[in-house]
Amino acid sequence: MRIAQIAPLFESVPPKGYGGTERVVSYLTEALVAMGHDVTLYASGDSETSARLVSACECGLRLDPRRPDWMVWHTLMLDRLFAAANSYDVIHFHVDTLHFPLARRCPRPCVTTLHGRLDLPDLQPLYHHFHEQPLVSISDSQRRPLPDAHWLATVHHGLPRELYRFREEAQSYFAFVGRVSPEKRVDRAIDIAVGCGTPLRIAAKVDDADRAYFEQVIRPRLEHPLVSFIGEIDERAKDEFIGRAQALLFPIDWPEPFGLVMIEAFACGTPVISFPGGSVPEVLEHGVTGFIVDDIQEAVSAARRIGELDRRRCREEFERRFTSDLMAQRYLDVYAGLCDGVRKAA
Amino acid sequence: MRIAQIAPLFESVPPKGYGGTERVVSYLTEALVAMGHDVTLYASGDSETSARLVSACECGLRLDPRRPDWMVWHTLMLDRLFAAANSYDVIHFHVDTLHFPLARRCPRPCVTTLHGRLDLPDLQPLYHHFHEQPLVSISDSQRRPLPDAHWLATVHHGLPRELYRFREEAQSYFAFVGRVSPEKRVDRAIDIAVGCGTPLRIAAKVDDADRAYFEQVIRPRLEHPLVSFIGEIDERAKDEFIGRAQALLFPIDWPEPFGLVMIEAFACGTPVISFPGGSVPEVLEHGVTGFIVDDIQEAVSAARRIGELDRRRCREEFERRFTSDLMAQRYLDVYAGLCDGVRKAA
Repeated sequence: MRIAQIAPLFESVPPKGYGGTERVVSYLTEALVAMGHDVTLYASGDSETSARLVSACECGLRLDPRRPDWMVWHTLMLDRLFAAANSYDVIHFHVDTLHFPLARRCPRPCVTTLHGRLDLPDLQPLYHHFHEQPLVSISDSQRRPLPDAHWLATVHHGLPRELYRFREEAQSYFAFVGRVSPEKRVDRAIDIAVGCGTPLRIAAKVDDADRAYFEQVIRPRLEHPLVSFIGEIDERAKDEFIGRAQALLFPIDWPEPFGLVMIEAFACGTPVISFPGGSVPEVLEHGVTGFIVDDIQEAVSAARRIGELDRRRCREEFERRFTSDLMAQRYLDVYAGLCDGVRKAA
Repeated sequence: MRIAQIAPLFESVPPKGYGGTERVVSYLTEALVAMGHDVTLYASGDSETSARLVSACECGLRLDPRRPDWMVWHTLMLDRLFAAANSYDVIHFHVDTLHFPLARRCPRPCVTTLHGRLDLPDLQPLYHHFHEQPLVSISDSQRRPLPDAHWLATVHHGLPRELYRFREEAQSYFAFVGRVSPEKRVDRAIDIAVGCGTPLRIAAKVDDADRAYFEQVIRPRLEHPLVSFIGEIDERAKDEFIGRAQALLFPIDWPEPFGLVMIEAFACGTPVISFPGGSVPEVLEHGVTGFIVDDIQEAVSAARRIGELDRRRCREEFERRFTSDLMAQRYLDVYAGLCDGVRKAA
């Protein structure tokens, strides 16, 4: 199948550092190529892929010191893509909704995976207007604010099977990975670890937007002797950092659309302690791959019982539900349905 | 002629407060309607126009407390417009370059007036790629960084003839009108007024982005007994504010694409003292409608000689070169050329 993958240009594919969407696009693209498909990836020029790369800008826009105008580069990419649309059997977008007016005028099948939260008031009129645009959600929970949009499927994210190593034995600490932002609730992670008397290691990035929150709310709490803050870490370091932890603490306070770090933990065999926001009840099986808790007290009790969970079962659940091969197969089913639809209409 | 005008949605047309582009779109639209054309205005729903209004969102996005997503509303507007493209003989865009991929796939003549500065590095590849898109500049100076783009004309901005009243007599003060931002150089205006011993009245808006600059650099200088700061003023107040001034000080330090306030001053009969940035030498005739100076000392000398200039000549230059009727006539010439081109190609 001739497939075009359209990535955002904010990060390279895969990203050098943080960047969930571009990372998932990379895993999907590599899995599709490995399955023998003819894949063209529209992405920043510093991307690394075994697909055919159409370089839409020199390098990921977020880290480019020239502060490029993101609209300009996305506009150029979309124009080049639609000029070549007839070369593809299906075009798969990961760039939010920028392309909708062009996609609805394109004779080839287009599908869009939405990677962000959808409970924002502006989105109702947008999806109502573009009601025919085929969409994929990354969790059932994510699509709930827009029940009438044209959903084809939910496809959970997946990771390459060998990306993270299973570790049978854990060391005595909890891990927190992500951004330091109010909705990620690193403060709760600290409360849980301190309540348990277990060390907490925080590998987190602080965006400019969250700098004041970090300085005022979080930094004073980092002085506790059980807490250590190690900043942003790369993929390779994450394997060991998450894999050696007794549990990943994911005490979010927002409608998480997916939560990639949960399945990274499962891949390592590390169970997750989370609050029930967004996709969490779909991704995490309570009592099997971790615990879903409603408050700090419950979280502390759960954290004390974390040794009761079987790390091998976490890895098995990852292999059963969250590999990139499985994700790619689900997307191929979506693509096939779209192409069938086009053939029947013709 | 059936003409569509596509305004940005950040402000209503005309704007309630500040907002150059939406104001010019309003003047152009009203002049075209008065000439008997069938004009459809795509703009925010709180716009006021004698054209047919297609409401693209409820109200101007900048002042909407719900903090709407501008991309969503511009995307919706463009999709609706292109769905109706066949209803128009010509489509005139004022929304930067968002519409280029759609415009190049549209069978009706499209033209874009660029309202911003063009000396930014990202724009070269953009205009190179969309090399066939017909463009109008608002000054010859504005287009200089992109000499090879597809320029059809320069059309200077214009104002309704009766919008500002000519005043023969001035009071003893200088006026500054605009944003308080580093490139507008209100600090230079203060230096000039203080150097002359003439009172300076500043009617200016402080954007959030310029708040720190205002507090640190400008506010301490407002304590001088000759300086008074009166904040943002509306159109009606501006007539009197500019019209009673001996001179408008416009000591900019950036490549101003047009500088609407200069022609507002001329309409009142008020001469302008400016530095030679961007469009200034095209708009202001040195020794007739004001003085163009290179430093503060020259500016002070010029300000002392301001009484030598004939206020009636300033008004005459406005009527000769900068009315909205003239602007509309020039755009009609551009539209006619485009439609001829389409007819010849057909």
